Amino acid sequence: MRASVLVEKGVIELQERPVPVPADGEVLVRVASVGVCGSDVHYYREGRIGGFVVEQPLVLGHEVSGQVVAVGRGVPEARVGERVAIDPQVPCRRCRACKSGRMNLCPNMRFYATPPVDGTFCDYVTAPADMAHEVPDTMSDDAAALLEPFSVGLWAAHKAGTTPGDRVLIAGAGPIGAMVAQAVRARGAADVVVTDFVDSRRERITSFGATRTLHPVDDADEVAALAADAFVDCSGATPAVVSGIGALRPGGTAVLVGLGDDVMPIPVSLVASREITLTGVFRYVDTWPRGIDLFRTGAVHLDEMVTARYPLERVQEALEADSDPLSMKAVVVVNPTGVGA
Amino acid sequence: MRASVLVEKGVIELQERPVPVPADGEVLVRVASVGVCGSDVHYYREGRIGGFVVEQPLVLGHEVSGQVVAVGRGVPEARVGERVAIDPQVPCRRCRACKSGRMNLCPNMRFYATPPVDGTFCDYVTAPADMAHEVPDTMSDDAAALLEPFSVGLWAAHKAGTTPGDRVLIAGAGPIGAMVAQAVRARGAADVVVTDFVDSRRERITSFGATRTLHPVDDADEVAALAADAFVDCSGATPAVVSGIGALRPGGTAVLVGLGDDVMPIPVSLVASREITLTGVFRYVDTWPRGIDLFRTGAVHLDEMVTARYPLERVQEALEADSDPLSMKAVVVVNPTGVGA
Amino acid sequence: MRASVLVEKGVIELQERPVPVPADGEVLVRVASVGVCGSDVHYYREGRIGGFVVEQPLVLGHEVSGQVVAVGRGVPEARVGERVAIDPQVPCRRCRACKSGRMNLCPNMRFYATPPVDGTFCDYVTAPADMAHEVPDTMSDDAAALLEPFSVGLWAAHKAGTTPGDRVLIAGAGPIGAMVAQAVRARGAADVVVTDFVDSRRERITSFGATRTLHPVDDADEVAALAADAFVDCSGATPAVVSGIGALRPGGTAVLVGLGDDVMPIPVSLVASREITLTGVFRYVDTWPRGIDLFRTGAVHLDEMVTARYPLERVQEALEADSDPLSMKAVVVVNPTGVGA
Amino acid sequence: MRASVLVEKGVIELQERPVPVPADGEVLVRVASVGVCGSDVHYYREGRIGGFVVEQPLVLGHEVSGQVVAVGRGVPEARVGERVAIDPQVPCRRCRACKSGRMNLCPNMRFYATPPVDGTFCDYVTAPADMAHEVPDTMSDDAAALLEPFSVGLWAAHKAGTTPGDRVLIAGAGPIGAMVAQAVRARGAADVVVTDFVDSRRERITSFGATRTLHPVDDADEVAALAADAFVDCSGATPAVVSGIGALRPGGTAVLVGLGDDVMPIPVSLVASREITLTGVFRYVDTWPRGIDLFRTGAVHLDEMVTARYPLERVQEALEADSDPLSMKAVVVVNPTGVGA
Repeated sequence: MRASVLVEKGVIELQERPVPVPADGEVLVRVASVGVCGSDVHYYREGRIGGFVVEQPLVLGHEVSGQVVAVGRGVPEARVGERVAIDPQVPCRRCRACKSGRMNLCPNMRFYATPPVDGTFCDYVTAPADMAHEVPDTMSDDAAALLEPFSVGLWAAHKAGTTPGDRVLIAGAGPIGAMVAQAVRARGAADVVVTDFVDSRRERITSFGATRTLHPVDDADEVAALAADAFVDCSGATPAVVSGIGALRPGGTAVLVGLGDDVMPIPVSLVASREITLTGVFRYVDTWPRGIDLFRTGAVHLDEMVTARYPLERVQEALEADSDPLSMKAVVVVNPTGVGA
Repeated sequence: MRASVLVEKGVIELQERPVPVPADGEVLVRVASVGVCGSDVHYYREGRIGGFVVEQPLVLGHEVSGQVVAVGRGVPEARVGERVAIDPQVPCRRCRACKSGRMNLCPNMRFYATPPVDGTFCDYVTAPADMAHEVPDTMSDDAAALLEPFSVGLWAAHKAGTTPGDRVLIAGAGPIGAMVAQAVRARGAADVVVTDFVDSRRERITSFGATRTLHPVDDADEVAALAADAFVDCSGATPAVVSGIGALRPGGTAVLVGLGDDVMPIPVSLVASREITLTGVFRYVDTWPRGIDLFRTGAVHLDEMVTARYPLERVQEALEADSDPLSMKAVVVVNPTGVGA
Repeated sequence: MRASVLVEKGVIELQERPVPVPADGEVLVRVASVGVCGSDVHYYREGRIGGFVVEQPLVLGHEVSGQVVAVGRGVPEARVGERVAIDPQVPCRRCRACKSGRMNLCPNMRFYATPPVDGTFCDYVTAPADMAHEVPDTMSDDAAALLEPFSVGLWAAHKAGTTPGDRVLIAGAGPIGAMVAQAVRARGAADVVVTDFVDSRRERITSFGATRTLHPVDDADEVAALAADAFVDCSGATPAVVSGIGALRPGGTAVLVGLGDDVMPIPVSLVASREITLTGVFRYVDTWPRGIDLFRTGAVHLDEMVTARYPLERVQEALEADSDPLSMKAVVVVNPTGVGA
Repeated sequence: MRASVLVEKGVIELQERPVPVPADGEVLVRVASVGVCGSDVHYYREGRIGGFVVEQPLVLGHEVSGQVVAVGRGVPEARVGERVAIDPQVPCRRCRACKSGRMNLCPNMRFYATPPVDGTFCDYVTAPADMAHEVPDTMSDDAAALLEPFSVGLWAAHKAGTTPGDRVLIAGAGPIGAMVAQAVRARGAADVVVTDFVDSRRERITSFGATRTLHPVDDADEVAALAADAFVDCSGATPAVVSGIGALRPGGTAVLVGLGDDVMPIPVSLVASREITLTGVFRYVDTWPRGIDLFRTGAVHLDEMVTARYPLERVQEALEADSDPLSMKAVVVVNPTGVGA
């Protein structure tokens, strides 16, 4: 099969690889669409993310949809033919984190495109059967792939603990900001304020859940006065995190989603005197079924986020797409199923 | 001022009463609209609700909007003129329940139209200033009054603990069922199944949050197979409560809103073996601000629930309105503000 | 190996069976001690528990400790020799319940001594490696076996949500009542009131967490006036459940642990008007590590609960031991390790 | 009456002041014991804490017990003579925070010894009747006063969300560290590790809840490897906060109690990738009843924390007592009741 491989920092090659064989309890999936994530771009450009270093050729990509073409032992043959979106996590299911409903924190996790585990910019991948979630025919291949970043939004909204009527501040109007905005709206947030430096990004996100937008610097006073119930950082920018914490009401919650500096100067006296909760998200827990259900209700727009589509031969271009600030989501189209488009 | 008084079981009289004087921290409100609640009807017909017995003439009504016309000591004069919706609770604010955020369970509660406290079918009422919530001009007097039953819906949804994507079963397609349906949709419920014996009520509630409806008997098998995340009873019917509990997935939650038999035969072995949570709602806690914010977002339809309007002289007719099964919400129009209609 | 088999209702036979072989990820454990549970007695006397019917010979017993004597593929050889207490659950780890931290509600659960799965009244059993928890040398074989019923107590206390200073009412001064009493004390309950009809049982439980005891009928008024934060039923008696719910403060929680009538007449109007939470427990989730840690701190007495010990040849006597109302916990001693006694 | 007044930074004078008159709903309390808090010392030495500046003479002291000697309107005369411990908060009871059970975050709070509100180093103080909690005769005046710092411990433990069997890391073996240690033990923590630079303080805290102690620098590796469920900082030292966060297991919680730098360099990438929760405490919510109940059970030692006692004339010495690193809690004895000692 074809696989698009990061052979060294900044260099992608299309190679031939053997089709993987599904193990017991796994399905073999022919890949349909793969979204490009910031982490893919980071590995491509820097060759590492924190402690995860690309030391040998690596297939990138982990936002993936496709079609089941074979099953391993213990998986019903009837699943062959099913269109699926894949939760890219393979937790151990045996540690304390897994047993307590926090598989995302499993120390033994295997995850697509995280060295040394290969990702999904290729023709076929395997996945545990329960991690391959059937999608309806009304859902396109692209939308199914984007259930992964939407899961990040759902999980961030869950961690933010928003309730109906809440005011939520989101820093960063990129794809993750848009996913979070839609997720908090689905939980009933009444006022979703998004900050971003770029005018066109601010304008665009009003189609993806934002009820209003502010400029981080020009509108700094207004941000500071928000008294928001929750703040979700999707920018990774230290000043945004600091001002976001300051914009919370007493008892509010700040959730870090964006990757930025490892250490930030946090106003801890404010955290204490206002009993603010600061936390972050790392992946998600079993969000696909809910993402699919919410998509069915029309609560979330996914196809509309795709700003460019590339064939498997042009993964490198897809990885460079974000050089255009108006790029929202690039998708690599591998083997389209032709359904749901 | 005029007051519509329940002088004895089944007999309403319009009487002259002195205008009340706002105490320290209170506002005086000229009443605009008052919704008719099932509890008003119950007092009117039976002269009692459980341990609360009407032993002297009583003004009914507690779903109320109006306009501030005077303030007591300690309340800013600027509030005069404000259009408000009133949270009808006057808790002691000093007991353990009040201090822990559960004022609704305050044993010292005073509440409109609960003997011996008079209600709001009259020209003027007083309320603690913080319980009179300003409403926007886009909200009609009627909608503002209906924030009270919507608060029941919000609180029931809160107790049900629904999360985005949930399947919720609601028994009873009356006004409270409609409020609950809209409230759980505002929290992201993807599948809201409402049961009712009356075809036209089932049909109507699809405009108020239901995604589908079932007949309690004809569709009993389908109800039983729902595996719902939450069940909210708004019927008070014992068979509905029993079948609703049986329709929950393991770990699901049942919330009792409807009044019915004091004692019901509950399948406790199911409650235990599926670790189901059974609870109920009693009023609400500070739901007006959120109700107003949700109304602003268009997440809830309130005016559309009003099926009949009566002047203060015709309260008795308003209390009889529910003899028509198609009546949803009767409203007594006292002193309309002319705004927001 | 020897296995004590329930061949038909009321008839136990010692048979020879092949030693099981540990599958991938499993350990083989030589059984040391096995506690007798009410459910074992129920199967022995009635041949069924609810929908679970004994239709073929069944080995009973599921409260078990022992020593690892062999390991399956993927389990470190170093575990051989380890003294362990076994969490008797084998969940699928793949369903929604398992993924969300509620493995106890897994619909695909396998569980010792639940037809058709054999239990632990025998020389050797297998278990998933992560379900066999190492115990310290300060813990006897019997105490290690009793981590299972203590887990029921811990899970019930968790579901009751008690916090430090709480008043807790427990109905039933048997072994489960004692486990719950110790568990809520470990969570800081200040007042633990236990009801039981039998004087000597009431007296005894003051050594196992109860701070005071009451007679269910003679002290009925005092029970009714408790305003307890939580009520845990360990009696299965309908009158105890009903009076326990009535003894809760508004906002209190009732947890059903004891098995009794499938349907009970529950005062639902009280549940609603006091916003009481009624739920139950079904097994437990990953409570062994915490049980072991609490045992280390001296917070729980387990050996002291053992009132009789029997060899494997006398399982039938052990199953009859509860005919003495002063029996608390009968233990079948199979292959003692000689450590921790 | 006598009042010990901070007339300017570093200068305390004993003055005559009029005895206050209890307003409606208040009690007048003759002060028995007053504990010295770090915040008193801070005002005394620096003349300010953050935005709170001492601009006019101020009576310090807020950890207070005493005896009711008169009551305001609406308070039962029968309370005269009652020995009480006072929750020093006077919240507005009307804002969103108050209504939602978080009075401690009330923006309109009045609090003893917080400019311009006078404190309790004097003969008589007034307090809302519901904030003066009756204490049993088995509790000394000093212990009753120390319910205030114990409340900080209880609230910190509540925010840490510890459950039975947890491992908790506490930085700082001073009085607050000791209160937190006892509070988490009361919640069932099995392993309570306290760090402090001073040998004698580490040794002493093993009598107040610590199960073991470590040196912050010499044992840094051991601290880093703890994988604690919760970390509570009672040191205010930036390095302790940073290392404490690093010592948490994934999903763990860090709670800031100690006052230190307003801004700290927090390892946010760790907070995100381990989904750590970072929060702080600000006062407490209705913790006195629970504190008293726990004291009754013997779960907490309060008298044993008192290292020096001073009469009202020597408040200045009491405020200097902490210059001795072995000082744990200085108490000013004003009008001893002679009970409970």
